[in-house]
Amino acid sequence: MSEVMKQLTAEQLSEVKRQMGIYTQGVQDIIPVEELENKVAKSVLENRPLKIKLGLDPSAPDVHLGHTVVLKKMRQFQDNGHIIQLLIGDFTGKIGDPTGKSVARKQLTDEEVKHNAKTYFEQFEKVVDMEKVELHYNSQWLSQLNFEDVIQLAGKITVARLMERDDFEERIAFGKPISLHEFFYPLMQGYDSVVLECDIELGGTDQHFNILMGRHFQEKYGKEKQVAILMPLLEGLDGIEKMSKSKKNYIGIDESPQEMYGKAMSIPDELMNKYFELITDFSPNNLETIKTGMESGNLHPRDAKMLLGKTIVRMYHGIEAAEKAEQQFISVFQKGAAPDEMPLVEWRGNTEMPVIDFLVDIHLLSSKSEARRMIENRGVKINGDKVEDTGILVSINHGLVVQVGKRKFVKIKML
Amino acid sequence: MSEVMKQLTAEQLSEVKRQMGIYTQGVQDIIPVEELENKVAKSVLENRPLKIKLGLDPSAPDVHLGHTVVLKKMRQFQDNGHIIQLLIGDFTGKIGDPTGKSVARKQLTDEEVKHNAKTYFEQFEKVVDMEKVELHYNSQWLSQLNFEDVIQLAGKITVARLMERDDFEERIAFGKPISLHEFFYPLMQGYDSVVLECDIELGGTDQHFNILMGRHFQEKYGKEKQVAILMPLLEGLDGIEKMSKSKKNYIGIDESPQEMYGKAMSIPDELMNKYFELITDFSPNNLETIKTGMESGNLHPRDAKMLLGKTIVRMYHGIEAAEKAEQQFISVFQKGAAPDEMPLVEWRGNTEMPVIDFLVDIHLLSSKSEARRMIENRGVKINGDKVEDTGILVSINHGLVVQVGKRKFVKIKML
Repeated sequence: MSEVMKQLTAEQLSEVKRQMGIYTQGVQDIIPVEELENKVAKSVLENRPLKIKLGLDPSAPDVHLGHTVVLKKMRQFQDNGHIIQLLIGDFTGKIGDPTGKSVARKQLTDEEVKHNAKTYFEQFEKVVDMEKVELHYNSQWLSQLNFEDVIQLAGKITVARLMERDDFEERIAFGKPISLHEFFYPLMQGYDSVVLECDIELGGTDQHFNILMGRHFQEKYGKEKQVAILMPLLEGLDGIEKMSKSKKNYIGIDESPQEMYGKAMSIPDELMNKYFELITDFSPNNLETIKTGMESGNLHPRDAKMLLGKTIVRMYHGIEAAEKAEQQFISVFQKGAAPDEMPLVEWRGNTEMPVIDFLVDIHLLSSKSEARRMIENRGVKINGDKVEDTGILVSINHGLVVQVGKRKFVKIKML
Repeated sequence: MSEVMKQLTAEQLSEVKRQMGIYTQGVQDIIPVEELENKVAKSVLENRPLKIKLGLDPSAPDVHLGHTVVLKKMRQFQDNGHIIQLLIGDFTGKIGDPTGKSVARKQLTDEEVKHNAKTYFEQFEKVVDMEKVELHYNSQWLSQLNFEDVIQLAGKITVARLMERDDFEERIAFGKPISLHEFFYPLMQGYDSVVLECDIELGGTDQHFNILMGRHFQEKYGKEKQVAILMPLLEGLDGIEKMSKSKKNYIGIDESPQEMYGKAMSIPDELMNKYFELITDFSPNNLETIKTGMESGNLHPRDAKMLLGKTIVRMYHGIEAAEKAEQQFISVFQKGAAPDEMPLVEWRGNTEMPVIDFLVDIHLLSSKSEARRMIENRGVKINGDKVEDTGILVSINHGLVVQVGKRKFVKIKML
């Protein structure tokens, strides 16, 4: 038992154990877990909140369920009186890509950064209490550093240590160039933790290296080291890649109840438990019941999936919307005879296009004139909704169900 | 023939050839030589002087003959109307070593930088016309860079390119750490050339990588690329290592005529031609005569060495001092029966110590009392000067000749 743990009363000790039980739930890794326990113990002993940092990239403010894995963990800390430090990495965003090669990494203006941050916060409100959150923009301190400060910072880390980062190591192995400025992104993230004096930094497992930079630089600058809490990455609807906007395999937390529910129904069976654990508000007991139910065959995967879909809609749109989405699904896809297994059509084209072209492109109908006729005869449904107008645009996304006539169904698989 | 060369009149062309003949003399490498010719041609065509940069480390202002190799080349450009840009790398000096590991790389104050620069210039005056030199301190622009500027700079070079530098490559191979800030020294040197818009950068072959950084960054910043002129490194009196203060194998250009002459006499025979070529003001014809003279045996190595010693003293102290130094050498070491081959005593101790201790330490005399008696009897000479006082301190340096009695000589070899 550590020195600080020894100073606790029995009551305080049980409070520490209680909090640790919550914080360790569903995480992939805590580095190191003993230090987390000591920090929680100290916080209980001194009645002082811990500071938990979450870094955000201001260039892509669309929040999806993948993000909520970390947000939910933040909420747990918040519920126990700790302080969340949301860190907008706007300094990086304002620089853009100095090599000029990446179009994606274009330079953001102050207004864009502020707008994107606001977009984040509006969405975050659904998971965390934004009133209690500390907001920080790292341009505030990073833009103040001069060349000498940068040299001092760079003097506190070796080239070899930086090259250990998986993606750098890989690029070196394959002879792909690394531009020197790229070495500075982990340094910045580490330095942010020095400035903010974070106790904990939260992130996905893909942030392992960068979050450990915080520990490294805090130590070099004579501060107490933060603990890394790494959350598992949530695979997207394709069941393979990490959920992300660019992969089009996500459920956005701002999407409509119907879209959410429909997309939830396309989650692969084998990911159900992970989704329940990481993105719902179910208690450990409930999670266990679902898991054993599916294992024993008492809970049919589709029923579990419907529960998941309903839960997600409830969390972001309320119970009424959830029940409505469920009802609609039942009437369209079950009573309406949508088969359990529909042919998949792989799609890598536009995400929006005229309905007539779309019907031809996915080979449901063989010509534009045929497509027009079928719509006019009210024989085309998209996600269960009758298409009333031959001139509309279809928003194409993963799991979209297109029906022609009574029995012809396809489901879209985004590539 | 390049475009610019084609525009020259016959007279101009011969002027270009004349200058190129001078600039290419005695150099180790010109990268690339065609670009140098084009630059000289343009300069002749447009009657515009070229800008030639020489970077100086402000932490070690003692100038020795090794430095004059480059200074002499500078002088040739100056004599043809070109502009010398002396660049004091004070920014680096003011930072010190951010890792705190190197005691040698201590932080310099503004006053120390100014003082050291002045010390340089006083010594340089013996080789170049300091009135016509442009002086620059790189802290003037480097201290103005902020983090964003540094990122932009770092974005213009890859990690792989930097790791090609010999010493980095070696340290990586042997698993020795490279601190990230070290990558910035070549970047700074390159950026200096961007700011100064240098046409040419001069340096020893050990500056190969750093000088090419200037070409690299000038191109990245849309400027005309400088040409690298690399001079051979002059081995010191030990005949092995590059002449340097730290190796104690140097002839300082501020040393007394006697010291200079004495040290010159300790240069290994096989380096004579190189010394004549690189540090004297002899014409190519004279150099050839000396070379063939030694090869044919018509010129005895010791006579050549005496000519070298006399020349060096003449260059830095004038003809009178040179003749006096020669006379003294002849009277002491030749007429005074100093043998051609004296036993060497290897020395790695203090560079200054009481004469009595010194005589015992080098085993010329077996006890302090014997040493005292011998000095009182006027039987001890150091570099031919009788030691008159038992209490003096001896300055110990490479090639120092100590004589006890008529026949007992030793020569000091610094380790």
